[in-house]
Amino acid sequence: MKKVKLTIAYDGTGYSGWQVQPNATSIQTLIESALATALQTSVTLIGSGRTDAGVHALAQVAHFEIDAAPDLYTLLRSLNGLLPSDIRILKVEEADASFHARFSAKGKIYHYKIDRGGVANPIHRLYSVHVPYPLDLPLLRKTASEFVGTHDFTSFSNEAHTGSASVNPIRTIRRLTILEEGSQLTFEFEGDGFLYKMVRNCVGTLLDIARGQLPPSELQKIFDARDRSRAGACAPAKGLFLTKVLYP
Amino acid sequence: MKKVKLTIAYDGTGYSGWQVQPNATSIQTLIESALATALQTSVTLIGSGRTDAGVHALAQVAHFEIDAAPDLYTLLRSLNGLLPSDIRILKVEEADASFHARFSAKGKIYHYKIDRGGVANPIHRLYSVHVPYPLDLPLLRKTASEFVGTHDFTSFSNEAHTGSASVNPIRTIRRLTILEEGSQLTFEFEGDGFLYKMVRNCVGTLLDIARGQLPPSELQKIFDARDRSRAGACAPAKGLFLTKVLYP
Repeated sequence: MKKVKLTIAYDGTGYSGWQVQPNATSIQTLIESALATALQTSVTLIGSGRTDAGVHALAQVAHFEIDAAPDLYTLLRSLNGLLPSDIRILKVEEADASFHARFSAKGKIYHYKIDRGGVANPIHRLYSVHVPYPLDLPLLRKTASEFVGTHDFTSFSNEAHTGSASVNPIRTIRRLTILEEGSQLTFEFEGDGFLYKMVRNCVGTLLDIARGQLPPSELQKIFDARDRSRAGACAPAKGLFLTKVLYP
Repeated sequence: MKKVKLTIAYDGTGYSGWQVQPNATSIQTLIESALATALQTSVTLIGSGRTDAGVHALAQVAHFEIDAAPDLYTLLRSLNGLLPSDIRILKVEEADASFHARFSAKGKIYHYKIDRGGVANPIHRLYSVHVPYPLDLPLLRKTASEFVGTHDFTSFSNEAHTGSASVNPIRTIRRLTILEEGSQLTFEFEGDGFLYKMVRNCVGTLLDIARGQLPPSELQKIFDARDRSRAGACAPAKGLFLTKVLYP
């Protein structure tokens, strides 16, 4: 058996997310269907992890197994010919037998984009969330630094909703950088792994603090409570990008 | 009479362009209709110039006349409430009696965006043109500098198609800067005014030269021929942004 690794970018606007779901168009379904046509055999695609409905990816990674390795360049061209233009296969590579898109991943980088303009920029409307109210940026950066490190992120996770409540809630955020470019603010999260909706829940809470809706002194109490209902609202999907999956 | 100046951003993807046309949805039509609702009277909107179907704007400017100035902030909020999210009114201001969106303009800045990635980035697919073939960037920059200055741009204009062939074809490009950011290339044109499809025709010709399809020595002959058929193809609308209209 050969393993083939795909690197994939998508505009999540029109999709129900990465994962195959009944009665909804998922990105995984469309790529598996294009693979079946291109390879003339059906394969199962294993992604590095799911992305939710409306979430984008600049470099999602997935793999599949096949008896004989196909011509990689031909496969890349065929897949991009078969897929809609909002899903693109960036790379097709042969991977080691030990490679696994999910279990080999040593970390992920997510970006979350905010449009701080007084009026939402229509060019960015599908790829950022409009936050027209004033934000205390020094406080935002200071509070962001308190998310960095190893913590129990139960209060920032919706894992309980997924039926996988037994997942380990201790995660490490290695870096949380806030980049300002014109009226666009990008939160750059790098971590060893993220719980369900964790990035969006962290962003929602950071924004509540930066706009003065939640005292910064509450943050440690929210972590300690291990209770999702204590943290801020989940920030909308359209601002989130899976930017990179890190492998050794 | 009072004059009111609007600054407008739009995603041109779904529209037939700025100008009112029969049997097509134009941006001007939608804004005039929103103005009629918000002001309870119908006004005529004068834009700084048309943008074609599929062309975007970050700061188009238009004005209208009205007997009594409305509350400007209320009007801004009302218009953005009435308009679809791909058209946004960024500013509403009262203008001097002498102001005219078109005739007072002393210049315009246009951006044209190209995605040079091996595979098109799906996030940029509606806002740039994918150019996967190799480009000679030093040659591109050198050739771009030859467009700067005052020239007869007849060979780069489709004015003859508009029935306004009597327009003055002598224009000045003050600046043509090429910015590189990752795999995105932005052509930044600043000029006193641009003929119909002039930016897109200049970009098409520049790309033909930079990819080796057209010898650079041909450029002066193309200018001299004053013949649209001699220059390169018109580059697609979706890469073009009206970025700024310059007033004294």
